[in-house]
Amino acid sequence: MENLLTIKDKFTQEVMSTMSYATDAEVEAAIVRGVNGAQLQKSFSPRERKEFLEKIRLGLIEDKEIFSQLIVKEAGKPIDMARGEVERGITLIEIAIGEMGRERGEKISTLFTPMNSPMKISTNTSTNFSTNTFMHHRQMGLVETFPLGLIFGITPFNFPLNLSLHKIIPAIAVGNSIIIKPSPHAPLTMMRFLDLCLRVGLPSGILQVVMMTHEQTHKTLSDDRIKMVSFTGSDHVGWHLKSQAHKKKVMLELGGNAAVIVDKSFPQERAVKELVYGAFAYAGQICISTQRIYIDEDIFENFCQDFARETEKLTLESRWGDPAQSGVVGGPIIDHKSAQRIDQWVNEALLDDKKLQGAYGTKILCGGKFLDGEKNLYAPTVIQNPPPNAKVITEEVFGPVVSLVKVKFFDEAISLINQSRYGLQGSLYTNQLHQIQYAFDHLELGTVLVNQIPGFRMDSMPYGGIKESGIGREGVRYAMEEMEEKKLLIW
Amino acid sequence: MENLLTIKDKFTQEVMSTMSYATDAEVEAAIVRGVNGAQLQKSFSPRERKEFLEKIRLGLIEDKEIFSQLIVKEAGKPIDMARGEVERGITLIEIAIGEMGRERGEKISTLFTPMNSPMKISTNTSTNFSTNTFMHHRQMGLVETFPLGLIFGITPFNFPLNLSLHKIIPAIAVGNSIIIKPSPHAPLTMMRFLDLCLRVGLPSGILQVVMMTHEQTHKTLSDDRIKMVSFTGSDHVGWHLKSQAHKKKVMLELGGNAAVIVDKSFPQERAVKELVYGAFAYAGQICISTQRIYIDEDIFENFCQDFARETEKLTLESRWGDPAQSGVVGGPIIDHKSAQRIDQWVNEALLDDKKLQGAYGTKILCGGKFLDGEKNLYAPTVIQNPPPNAKVITEEVFGPVVSLVKVKFFDEAISLINQSRYGLQGSLYTNQLHQIQYAFDHLELGTVLVNQIPGFRMDSMPYGGIKESGIGREGVRYAMEEMEEKKLLIW
Amino acid sequence: MENLLTIKDKFTQEVMSTMSYATDAEVEAAIVRGVNGAQLQKSFSPRERKEFLEKIRLGLIEDKEIFSQLIVKEAGKPIDMARGEVERGITLIEIAIGEMGRERGEKISTLFTPMNSPMKISTNTSTNFSTNTFMHHRQMGLVETFPLGLIFGITPFNFPLNLSLHKIIPAIAVGNSIIIKPSPHAPLTMMRFLDLCLRVGLPSGILQVVMMTHEQTHKTLSDDRIKMVSFTGSDHVGWHLKSQAHKKKVMLELGGNAAVIVDKSFPQERAVKELVYGAFAYAGQICISTQRIYIDEDIFENFCQDFARETEKLTLESRWGDPAQSGVVGGPIIDHKSAQRIDQWVNEALLDDKKLQGAYGTKILCGGKFLDGEKNLYAPTVIQNPPPNAKVITEEVFGPVVSLVKVKFFDEAISLINQSRYGLQGSLYTNQLHQIQYAFDHLELGTVLVNQIPGFRMDSMPYGGIKESGIGREGVRYAMEEMEEKKLLIW
Amino acid sequence: MENLLTIKDKFTQEVMSTMSYATDAEVEAAIVRGVNGAQLQKSFSPRERKEFLEKIRLGLIEDKEIFSQLIVKEAGKPIDMARGEVERGITLIEIAIGEMGRERGEKISTLFTPMNSPMKISTNTSTNFSTNTFMHHRQMGLVETFPLGLIFGITPFNFPLNLSLHKIIPAIAVGNSIIIKPSPHAPLTMMRFLDLCLRVGLPSGILQVVMMTHEQTHKTLSDDRIKMVSFTGSDHVGWHLKSQAHKKKVMLELGGNAAVIVDKSFPQERAVKELVYGAFAYAGQICISTQRIYIDEDIFENFCQDFARETEKLTLESRWGDPAQSGVVGGPIIDHKSAQRIDQWVNEALLDDKKLQGAYGTKILCGGKFLDGEKNLYAPTVIQNPPPNAKVITEEVFGPVVSLVKVKFFDEAISLINQSRYGLQGSLYTNQLHQIQYAFDHLELGTVLVNQIPGFRMDSMPYGGIKESGIGREGVRYAMEEMEEKKLLIW
Repeated sequence: MENLLTIKDKFTQEVMSTMSYATDAEVEAAIVRGVNGAQLQKSFSPRERKEFLEKIRLGLIEDKEIFSQLIVKEAGKPIDMARGEVERGITLIEIAIGEMGRERGEKISTLFTPMNSPMKISTNTSTNFSTNTFMHHRQMGLVETFPLGLIFGITPFNFPLNLSLHKIIPAIAVGNSIIIKPSPHAPLTMMRFLDLCLRVGLPSGILQVVMMTHEQTHKTLSDDRIKMVSFTGSDHVGWHLKSQAHKKKVMLELGGNAAVIVDKSFPQERAVKELVYGAFAYAGQICISTQRIYIDEDIFENFCQDFARETEKLTLESRWGDPAQSGVVGGPIIDHKSAQRIDQWVNEALLDDKKLQGAYGTKILCGGKFLDGEKNLYAPTVIQNPPPNAKVITEEVFGPVVSLVKVKFFDEAISLINQSRYGLQGSLYTNQLHQIQYAFDHLELGTVLVNQIPGFRMDSMPYGGIKESGIGREGVRYAMEEMEEKKLLIW
Repeated sequence: MENLLTIKDKFTQEVMSTMSYATDAEVEAAIVRGVNGAQLQKSFSPRERKEFLEKIRLGLIEDKEIFSQLIVKEAGKPIDMARGEVERGITLIEIAIGEMGRERGEKISTLFTPMNSPMKISTNTSTNFSTNTFMHHRQMGLVETFPLGLIFGITPFNFPLNLSLHKIIPAIAVGNSIIIKPSPHAPLTMMRFLDLCLRVGLPSGILQVVMMTHEQTHKTLSDDRIKMVSFTGSDHVGWHLKSQAHKKKVMLELGGNAAVIVDKSFPQERAVKELVYGAFAYAGQICISTQRIYIDEDIFENFCQDFARETEKLTLESRWGDPAQSGVVGGPIIDHKSAQRIDQWVNEALLDDKKLQGAYGTKILCGGKFLDGEKNLYAPTVIQNPPPNAKVITEEVFGPVVSLVKVKFFDEAISLINQSRYGLQGSLYTNQLHQIQYAFDHLELGTVLVNQIPGFRMDSMPYGGIKESGIGREGVRYAMEEMEEKKLLIW
Repeated sequence: MENLLTIKDKFTQEVMSTMSYATDAEVEAAIVRGVNGAQLQKSFSPRERKEFLEKIRLGLIEDKEIFSQLIVKEAGKPIDMARGEVERGITLIEIAIGEMGRERGEKISTLFTPMNSPMKISTNTSTNFSTNTFMHHRQMGLVETFPLGLIFGITPFNFPLNLSLHKIIPAIAVGNSIIIKPSPHAPLTMMRFLDLCLRVGLPSGILQVVMMTHEQTHKTLSDDRIKMVSFTGSDHVGWHLKSQAHKKKVMLELGGNAAVIVDKSFPQERAVKELVYGAFAYAGQICISTQRIYIDEDIFENFCQDFARETEKLTLESRWGDPAQSGVVGGPIIDHKSAQRIDQWVNEALLDDKKLQGAYGTKILCGGKFLDGEKNLYAPTVIQNPPPNAKVITEEVFGPVVSLVKVKFFDEAISLINQSRYGLQGSLYTNQLHQIQYAFDHLELGTVLVNQIPGFRMDSMPYGGIKESGIGREGVRYAMEEMEEKKLLIW
Repeated sequence: MENLLTIKDKFTQEVMSTMSYATDAEVEAAIVRGVNGAQLQKSFSPRERKEFLEKIRLGLIEDKEIFSQLIVKEAGKPIDMARGEVERGITLIEIAIGEMGRERGEKISTLFTPMNSPMKISTNTSTNFSTNTFMHHRQMGLVETFPLGLIFGITPFNFPLNLSLHKIIPAIAVGNSIIIKPSPHAPLTMMRFLDLCLRVGLPSGILQVVMMTHEQTHKTLSDDRIKMVSFTGSDHVGWHLKSQAHKKKVMLELGGNAAVIVDKSFPQERAVKELVYGAFAYAGQICISTQRIYIDEDIFENFCQDFARETEKLTLESRWGDPAQSGVVGGPIIDHKSAQRIDQWVNEALLDDKKLQGAYGTKILCGGKFLDGEKNLYAPTVIQNPPPNAKVITEEVFGPVVSLVKVKFFDEAISLINQSRYGLQGSLYTNQLHQIQYAFDHLELGTVLVNQIPGFRMDSMPYGGIKESGIGREGVRYAMEEMEEKKLLIW
């Protein structure tokens, strides 16, 4: 029956749980409860909301290991990273608590316009208390922020805790209510988190987690009682959803095909080590996973050899496979369909080059095959010089596949990166100051990192893409700002 | 022939000029030139861009009276206000010049996350110059703003200079290029402004003014080379355009049915005088024209009498009619169709009440008729107590019609104002501090004004509506921010 | 022996403890340890410093009642207020933790000057990686904040916890070390707080509490290893200390003679109730205790009667006396000398008027005498119309004495308030909007409050006086900023 | 007669003008006029003040060459730089005009404290207009800036226009009045500037230029009617003045002995060229003239040779001497006494090394002598490896003398720079990113520049030193902020 959802352990493929999609009546009830939740939020002071967050934070600290294990199983994420995700979730709440004391409104200058010129200070020296004859000397203006109301968050499987927290925590902090529709691949973490929130006393209606079908999602999306939609996921789905939401505020955090430039001025050993991790951590199932590396021709051959050797160590040294094992870097792909798509794209890259008479000399340096088909384990794969139109270059792979590309000129690398329709994050390994400035000015990306993997994210920084990688910014303070509306008072 | 546009003097109805709509090839050429203009902008320093603005400003000062007369004629705007519009345009450019020296980027805190904890300051006391072994002690982050590229601005007839300048000047200031499609009612002002810009040396391609048909507008709107659409006009058109622009940044400045609350603590004489002006200036053809006034029952009767008397003076004292005469407050409605619609809505208000057995006691206190049908002169009209569902209450009248409504409770007034689907500006005449706070917290408006008409706008303040009155904010700095994208650099 | 200090319970006069002043060698050792503490701070990340504060906060929560009782005894502060002080201390630390994640640096615009004009973006289209020929396209600037080093804080008896925490917590938060010299009247709270800090793991040398003689204080003050002096106390001492500190950064939080204006538009009952509390809480031993009330002549007589009746209730209803009793508003004066000074000033006010032939009709409406000389209990005292030159008007009384003064004109009240050499806080009870604007523009005060007692302080707001009430601002973020220096990087 | 001042052309030594010091009565009259000027300023709107500045700017543009010539003559500044100084003065005014539209106040968060917790939104649904029973729901706070009053500015000879404008323009912009005491070496520029201001309509009393004796200066300094003292000049004088000003706000912009680190990663040719200019422009009479260069031992010998050769070209190619000649880099020292002091310090450097048995191998690579004693022309002088205690290292030379010092370790260079009691500006020529971060963290300077001479200053940047180089910051916005006081309004 279509309405039943089975959640499996992504490595062992054992069934963890089954759950139902909500009925239409349940979705309607959730919206009503959410509207009431938004109303209820208005009766809480910031201080009271802060106390909710503080309790949730303590609950999360207590259940750290429970959440980590859940993420390992339902998302197939290596345990070290799962623990890191929970740690970051705790920090994220701390950041939000800090931000709640920070003024987001502003004082507005009203002094500098012709309409306001007759604002002389009154020269009356004796104005009786009882008269009402003071002039208004001048205007003062201030902008203050107000919550939007009920928010609808749609979140992906790969960070089942954190990518939802990036919506939930700011929403609660500024006084909204929120309904989360989690990924059908990995909804259990959010269900458990909802339990935690209710247990520590978050009033009902402020946070709800509802598993919806596509139709329900679309219907909810266009419901007038929903004031904002915040989506994290693939770009095709994201932009389509946006076209349905129309008059609503929509925030999209979509994918990318993150690229790196490696200059010879940077110590190669460190670059290789970091980038192998950047490419293969969690089998590449991260929006800002390192997917393309553009390397100065002078060091290209050496770099490729080192990179391939370092990648092979992942499988040789048992760092690939069971996500429950500490030390493992990459495990299963989320489902069979995705794993097959990845394999197909790798093969297409070779074919694409053949069609061009091998003009690019595309080679697979390692990987390019399944390690265990049942478990959706795909080998960490390094492709040398795929053609620029290969899907592993132009699309988001979201798997353990990285391409190494030789470039002669620095601005050639810039231009190859910019050919993408995505614009999320990218990085540069260099010690040349002028390259940094040039890259920052010219790379069409939300974030340019220096001597960091593109996968670097702090939960406090403004995070989000330009071009087709999305609209709006998350990162605690930034999400808070997106989830508010501003009103101006002039008196 | 459909492709020819005739622009008339709105009072005398004499033909001022005819012009053609652009051909499709001309529209395409304009887009290409605009893309090149955006590229060209990148080669200018902020200082050079500032000099362009400075020259445009001086040109505008010189041609002040020419522009004022043009606005009087093609927009039917009273000369005093037309001159005010040009003055504000000059100020707007000054504000932009000032803003250009202001940093819009920010430094980002990178210190407060677990990922960044090992940032100890190195304790090595002797690091040789020649080695490359310094640790990166910590990360620094900064956000910088970059221009978007080519912007498409669509503007209305009622402020043919200023509502275009609110798009053009910020666009140029931050380094974009822009194409303006002016209103077919009043395109001459923009044509003349374009001439001025080219004459003072603004390189071609940075600003273009192109008269387009509906189809051309829609095609341009969805062209990938356009990076942002900025529309000022009616809400129906605006939201429809937005649905076409999809992945693009869209800014909408739409209409409203501005409301006021009058408390008895405020000197009534001053309130009446200001609000008569707020309701009838430029025959109400202003997005934030005073359309609804909610009055404390204790002063309601008196207020209505005074208000009607003050309104009648407008016609008695020759302050209604020929916009070229100084002292005139309101002149012609922009076209016959609009004038008829206004008349119909006034009559409907009476009918609406009749349908309800006169429950509201709707009365027309003055006006309610044409003064001169040929010239589209409609008498300034005061309606007492129309029913809440009358179009003069729920829709944007955009004509010389104001409704006075008796209310008993302060929060009843708040709630009546909030019933609107619009949320642009509103105001409050009171000397009671607690009412101000309460109104600011509860009115669903972009701006709440105190002891001011809702029509108050400074060109530096953040201006724009919530609900269906639009998305985004104009006002020089705010428009500049909307017309940029932010990139984050972390090193 | 001069070198021994006896701390008594301020109500029972029982000896609580004796302690020695530090020897000169101990002071020197403290400075050395403090310099090392500042060095040590540099090795901690903000995150580590945040954890210190978090532990201190938890310690304070645990010892809440211990600290409250200590404050009751050594400072003679009523228990309800003592508990409030500890609560605020906890909040203060929370605020600081939040502020630590907030960027205090800024990005600097470098674009707008002639020196920077040739910053064209390079048009080279192919720059080889290996060459070093990129131009520096433009300059980027950023300001970052750095700790100062060792700070010397001198604090008064009346808020033995909080006024020290306003120095200690920001100092630790931004990475400084600090030595506190507490008041000899009430040093035990700080001693206990130091214990708490060391117990929870704050490394030694970051916070020290040292009881110094006057000479030692002066010597420390002018020691080059001290980078900043932060003093809270009386104005005479403060300005004298500043003259010794010379090249050092000095922050002074001094006293005031806080004034209020009462307009008849405000409900009198509430105003009286709040202002009686504002004048007599903690027997007026608060820098921003209500000392002068200027009242509209139309309500003056009534106001005085109500105020005197409400004041008398304090003694009649056992709300005056033993600070250990809940409900008590005011207890003992800190020492006999101070109590006698207060009594003398009250009497002088009558004499001052007599010298002027009773021109002001000065009267004592209630109080004006000791209730218990041994315990330094002075009756809450209301003086009607003292002459403007009376000490109870011009000086800081720091005792349970308030003056009610009749005024005819609003700006007369403003002008009387401004005659003071102090400028800390003041307030206004009114519902007249124009009075608020006028008062804010004209009152020479650090803070103008509306419909609040002048004694209102949030620990997050910028707090401090102008004129002779001090220099610099405290309030967590503001103190943090004062305790840092800014460096600009341009590259 | 002591009271007469003779101003000579610094190159030809011809008398340009004589003028009298003010009498005591004139100084008193100036203070009175200044107090009135401050009062008058309060009657002007920001817009009116902006118009004053606009007119002054236009006047300065018109008289550009007159001012340039005056600066050449009375300050002995090469004409190219004199013209640059006037250009920068014009820009400075533009920056100020822009800043005047920028809000300097702020909205204050009042939400996050226990005292503010009962701020529930009222749930009354029907509150009659006429009652006064609304609760104050919550507090709002805002900080606004107000002018200080009369400011006293004391300025040096070397930038007779700009260093005064950095005080005058911000003072006028924010609404203060100001008295300038110019340098007796070069007062004519300011006299002329005052004329210009009065001619274009700046009301009398807002700006005054008064030549005072030492005693008059000290007396004025400590006058209570002066609200702030802003001094630019030598450190000894500055700190002494500060000790007299006591309770007043004092801003000191003092000297430095600016240092540079040169790493071998930076193209040497460009470094040498820029640093020769940095060391010798205006014969080194600039607070941030390059005085010390610390060079990586690997390139030291080469660097010294190139540097000396490039320096010698200054004299060989007629770029040293008559400041009226275009192309000249350095001309006369301001007076004979200063020239002799410089010569003496150069000789002492050799002696200091001799005393240490030539441990440092100090050598004079070029210069070290007068070129024309009458005209106070001193040859551009390069000293190799003076001992660390030589005056040319530890003191501010303020003449055409630079020291080149070999260093082995990067942090050795940092530490040598930090040994100075000064901390104004310094720079780093490098392409190594890690060196930049390390230097920024460790250099005790107000500004760290990368690949720029230390003499770089934009008039908009925050400029000023730490340690004994001063307190406070100039740079238009920063000076404006220093010249205001902030008031907080809470309602």
